[in-house]
Amino acid sequence: MTTPSPLSPYDNLTPVTQAAYRARSAAADLAPLPRSAKDDALLAIADALEVRTSEVVSANAEDIARAREAGTSESIIDRLTLTPERVRAIAADVRHVAALPDPVGEVVRGSTLPNGIDLRQIRVPLGVVGIIYEARPNVTVDAAALCLKSGNAVLLRGSSSAYSSNTALVRVLRDAIGGAGLPADAIQLVPGESRDSVQELMRARGLVDVLIPRGGAGLIRTVVEQSTVPVIETGTGNCHVYVDAETDIDMAVDILINSKAQRPSVCNAAESLLVHQDIAAAFLPRALDALAEAGVTVHGDERVRAHAAEAGTKATVVAATPEDWETEYLSYDIAAAVVDSLDAAVAHIRLWSSGHTEAIVTTSQAAARRFTQLVDSTTVAVNASTRFTDGGQFGFGAEIGISTQKLHARGPMGLPELTSTKYIVTGDGHIR
Amino acid sequence: MTTPSPLSPYDNLTPVTQAAYRARSAAADLAPLPRSAKDDALLAIADALEVRTSEVVSANAEDIARAREAGTSESIIDRLTLTPERVRAIAADVRHVAALPDPVGEVVRGSTLPNGIDLRQIRVPLGVVGIIYEARPNVTVDAAALCLKSGNAVLLRGSSSAYSSNTALVRVLRDAIGGAGLPADAIQLVPGESRDSVQELMRARGLVDVLIPRGGAGLIRTVVEQSTVPVIETGTGNCHVYVDAETDIDMAVDILINSKAQRPSVCNAAESLLVHQDIAAAFLPRALDALAEAGVTVHGDERVRAHAAEAGTKATVVAATPEDWETEYLSYDIAAAVVDSLDAAVAHIRLWSSGHTEAIVTTSQAAARRFTQLVDSTTVAVNASTRFTDGGQFGFGAEIGISTQKLHARGPMGLPELTSTKYIVTGDGHIR
Repeated sequence: MTTPSPLSPYDNLTPVTQAAYRARSAAADLAPLPRSAKDDALLAIADALEVRTSEVVSANAEDIARAREAGTSESIIDRLTLTPERVRAIAADVRHVAALPDPVGEVVRGSTLPNGIDLRQIRVPLGVVGIIYEARPNVTVDAAALCLKSGNAVLLRGSSSAYSSNTALVRVLRDAIGGAGLPADAIQLVPGESRDSVQELMRARGLVDVLIPRGGAGLIRTVVEQSTVPVIETGTGNCHVYVDAETDIDMAVDILINSKAQRPSVCNAAESLLVHQDIAAAFLPRALDALAEAGVTVHGDERVRAHAAEAGTKATVVAATPEDWETEYLSYDIAAAVVDSLDAAVAHIRLWSSGHTEAIVTTSQAAARRFTQLVDSTTVAVNASTRFTDGGQFGFGAEIGISTQKLHARGPMGLPELTSTKYIVTGDGHIR
Repeated sequence: MTTPSPLSPYDNLTPVTQAAYRARSAAADLAPLPRSAKDDALLAIADALEVRTSEVVSANAEDIARAREAGTSESIIDRLTLTPERVRAIAADVRHVAALPDPVGEVVRGSTLPNGIDLRQIRVPLGVVGIIYEARPNVTVDAAALCLKSGNAVLLRGSSSAYSSNTALVRVLRDAIGGAGLPADAIQLVPGESRDSVQELMRARGLVDVLIPRGGAGLIRTVVEQSTVPVIETGTGNCHVYVDAETDIDMAVDILINSKAQRPSVCNAAESLLVHQDIAAAFLPRALDALAEAGVTVHGDERVRAHAAEAGTKATVVAATPEDWETEYLSYDIAAAVVDSLDAAVAHIRLWSSGHTEAIVTTSQAAARRFTQLVDSTTVAVNASTRFTDGGQFGFGAEIGISTQKLHARGPMGLPELTSTKYIVTGDGHIR
């Protein structure tokens, strides 16, 4: 056997590669399972999380103590913290995933061909999914539950700051699914806290079917650029609100403030405001005051600053630099520019947007139609907040992330996006 | 502008990157075009190919002369050759693509959310598609037509052996679509005949949306391993025919011979035969004789060779080495093994298959069900030849390739597989 197959057992495997082989074997067992077997395991996970809450919370306390020693900010410590109440909420989320329809086996296409062959394209699990994520330990359980429901084995690579929490959580999950008769290796924490384990995951082509990085832009860029395993790029959002020449100004102010300030730390929050020059004098004074009230600093181009000065707004308006047009602030800041036309707004968005979500506020059907046709982002909102780009809001019931790439999945990813398909060709002796 | 955007014009662009920028701009123009504009351009291409056949054929003669000088084999020269008749056939294929439905704008999902928002997921072009392919110049036109129909700009990187033919063809195509009012840069030959241009294409992340290598296993592996642009892996086919314990022997022989010998040079031809031990004594003598008649050399394991010796078949049966289990012969050769059970056949396939197409021949409903559940390939055929895995056979009307990966597209890829999607969220002032 001179040319080893990716599925052959080798000597000298690294711990990460060993984990991937075990995951592959578990994935083969999961793929044909009926929904009931997967749901039973999910309910066992939820029960186990409730029964073993104190074990999880005390492991979490170790992470928090380390984080405090390291001088971590309170906002990050808050995201890291698991209370008994939060663990209960996580368990409830797992029950919610169990209640969702099983994507596996869904017939996506089907027909009888002219020669009498029955052709069906059905959803099948991807196989082994690797998730690389940052501080929040709740992602450990969410991702594991979504992968299990969709018949995939999962390799979880959380941040080292949550290692004790993740270790405890994965122990609970593995015990629960093992008790429910499923292979425990369907859920594994990637061994090792060092960056080497991320590198090994990115090189595990043939063993890992897809990597999904969830977290900051730096993490995502590293994985996208370095991985030989196929990647689904998630979550960077430089979202725009464009206020058209013909618009309902009250609606435009409401949508702007909601898009920017309802929760600025998330990827579907707006980071840029574009205003048609014909409406700027009427809209900007109201918008700037509303932004000021919401505590938002405006990074304005020359024309925005001129309108601000003329209107005597109480808003803080600083001069925008080109960097502002491409910055995902994730804070109470917004870039703002006046544009000559809808097409100029589209050109600005094409140049600077991360392709996540762009909204237009307009009373013109023609403008709405042109904007939705020309803007090439995962989601285009017409007279609605950018904040709706979300698996929960879209009615998917759960979300593994928001893909900002064009291949495989684009926009909020639910359970079907964690599947591939295969064709079943059924004949009675058909030959060509 | 310290951090340049991928869409900014730069100084010092390489010719390939310049081509990619122009393709991106053309793609933005193509995306909103209605079907009629694209079909008119396709029909203009077909007409132009017929009018300018002699220009294409004489350019092709230069390639053929060079190939003969270089001592190229007649089979490759045949694939390279364009006759007036072949050019007419290519033009007819383009008219066929024009007649296919436009995938762009198709509503994939749609609903009114509980809050009254209208949500629609619609198909949109991918943007810029790069195709890297080998000798056949007809791929130049096929790929351009399919990309144009699906609203994508295309960067064509053919083999240097077909450079004159491809240059002439692309000149005809660009003139035709330019005359039809579409941007000529929607169809471009990647400049340069050296391997550097392939390297540059593979590094053009952000400019090229997807690369599709079409050709030999070596080309595909290089692109898959080295590209930072997302890749759709196509076409390697180590396809298996498994003859179950309960089977119709006549049907099994017919399917085996058709799968192996009807056209051995294609990716959906069978390369391996697996026979259940309980049927081997009845099936193998018949099968080996039929393979011998079809001119197929059998690379058999010990048990196959024992049956061959016992039956006194006229077939050529050589001893299989482990390499045979994973070889895509593309010739009149087949690897053959006797397996203990259906599950052993599945295990063999999991270990060695390229995941293209596997067929089972069985009279048992339970065996058919288990095989289709457990085999994880793009296509599983029950009582049908492996040769049906083909966009034309599946009724897709055309095919850009057969994806053997799990992300985005799996199996024969038609026009919908050359699209992505975007969500349109329409409200009347909706905020969260």
